[in-house]
Amino acid sequence: MHRVRFRDPAGSVRNGQWHDDHVSFAGETYSLDEVDVLPPCEPTKIVCIGRNYAEHADEMDNEVPDRPLLFLKPPNALAGHGDTVPLPAGKERVDWEAEIAVVVGKQARNVAAEDAMDYVAGFTCMNDVSNRDDQDREQNWVRGKAFDNAAPLGPVLATPDEVPEDASVELRVNGETKQSSSRDYMMFSVADLVEEITTYMTLEPGDVISTGTPAGVGALSDGDRVEVEVGGVGVLEHDVRAAE
Amino acid sequence: MHRVRFRDPAGSVRNGQWHDDHVSFAGETYSLDEVDVLPPCEPTKIVCIGRNYAEHADEMDNEVPDRPLLFLKPPNALAGHGDTVPLPAGKERVDWEAEIAVVVGKQARNVAAEDAMDYVAGFTCMNDVSNRDDQDREQNWVRGKAFDNAAPLGPVLATPDEVPEDASVELRVNGETKQSSSRDYMMFSVADLVEEITTYMTLEPGDVISTGTPAGVGALSDGDRVEVEVGGVGVLEHDVRAAE
Repeated sequence: MHRVRFRDPAGSVRNGQWHDDHVSFAGETYSLDEVDVLPPCEPTKIVCIGRNYAEHADEMDNEVPDRPLLFLKPPNALAGHGDTVPLPAGKERVDWEAEIAVVVGKQARNVAAEDAMDYVAGFTCMNDVSNRDDQDREQNWVRGKAFDNAAPLGPVLATPDEVPEDASVELRVNGETKQSSSRDYMMFSVADLVEEITTYMTLEPGDVISTGTPAGVGALSDGDRVEVEVGGVGVLEHDVRAAE
Repeated sequence: MHRVRFRDPAGSVRNGQWHDDHVSFAGETYSLDEVDVLPPCEPTKIVCIGRNYAEHADEMDNEVPDRPLLFLKPPNALAGHGDTVPLPAGKERVDWEAEIAVVVGKQARNVAAEDAMDYVAGFTCMNDVSNRDDQDREQNWVRGKAFDNAAPLGPVLATPDEVPEDASVELRVNGETKQSSSRDYMMFSVADLVEEITTYMTLEPGDVISTGTPAGVGALSDGDRVEVEVGGVGVLEHDVRAAE
């Protein structure tokens, strides 16, 4: 089942069902035009993974890490399906990065890889929007990765049975395919990531692990239409605009 | 006024008043033994500053940065006054770092330094507990800084008028003074930090800016009793234990 959080025409936030061309909650159906699709969960943190696909590490002239490279996006980074993301002002290069995002289902600490999927509610799509101007000159990627709306997320939460082990991840800009890979090419699996992260910190229900981006990143421009598609999940769409 | 969040003997969370040897809420008073003192706010993120005192940068063999060095602690890092903080397992060196913490009072974005204090609810004490084993070998300080209970915070929220411009910051371990400095020696002021951070991200009410630690950091050991004292705020006390 594809679950969607949305604000209905009366302003109430609903956890309903997604039916591609409409959404429903408690027997009521709404067209997508009538509702505001929200991120499918309410994370206290998004734990992101860098360099989890060898070809992307290579295109950035980076070594493949010997353990997952972790960084954080706080809740201010969230944006939803259909939103317009303002690019940070005065930057030369702000990139797209399509990712398969894992949504945590229950509180998790010190979870072994073999038990990890018990703690996963499902999957969604994320664009790890990245401000390279600052990322390239700071120790921690805060200005580079944690700015407002740097994490468009959605549109739905797909349960684990709906998302194959070799799920595709693809990104299109204005209809043109820029990234195309699959879960097969991740260096650290979802289970490995849950184990590693929960060695250090508690994951809460609704928290997100974004599993890294494959090769093909590039710079966003004012007015671009971005689609992130994950096999078994669907398509997250948003556009971007230059800062005023 | 010194505000304190606490769980009363019936389990209700109260925003009450602090009176040094007791707390009160709605005409009821409680001894400190009767209540569980909680962090004085509920941050969606803690934005921390590295190397904001020249002598500390020097003791760590680091350059003084030309703009604030930012890193993040998510809510899982919180701990309260009187809590026992478990040190991360299997690490050689986990350090104390006394800091003056700023609590945000209202939603803040693109705030100029001259207006910054309008957005500050007050100040509290923080220990930026730091796992050097991992911090020293990762790009982003996530394992090093964002682990569970790495941010003891409290005990009270003191309003800005109670905390002098040259407020002291001091840390004692088992009664022995290890760090002693003041707000005077910060390289980037609170106002500068609010401006810089809100250029990139929205600060929410209850969010925390932890303003960096002065010289005198050192390693915590099983059973240590830590006190962080900020002038005009009071004393945050917690102890630590080795992981089992």
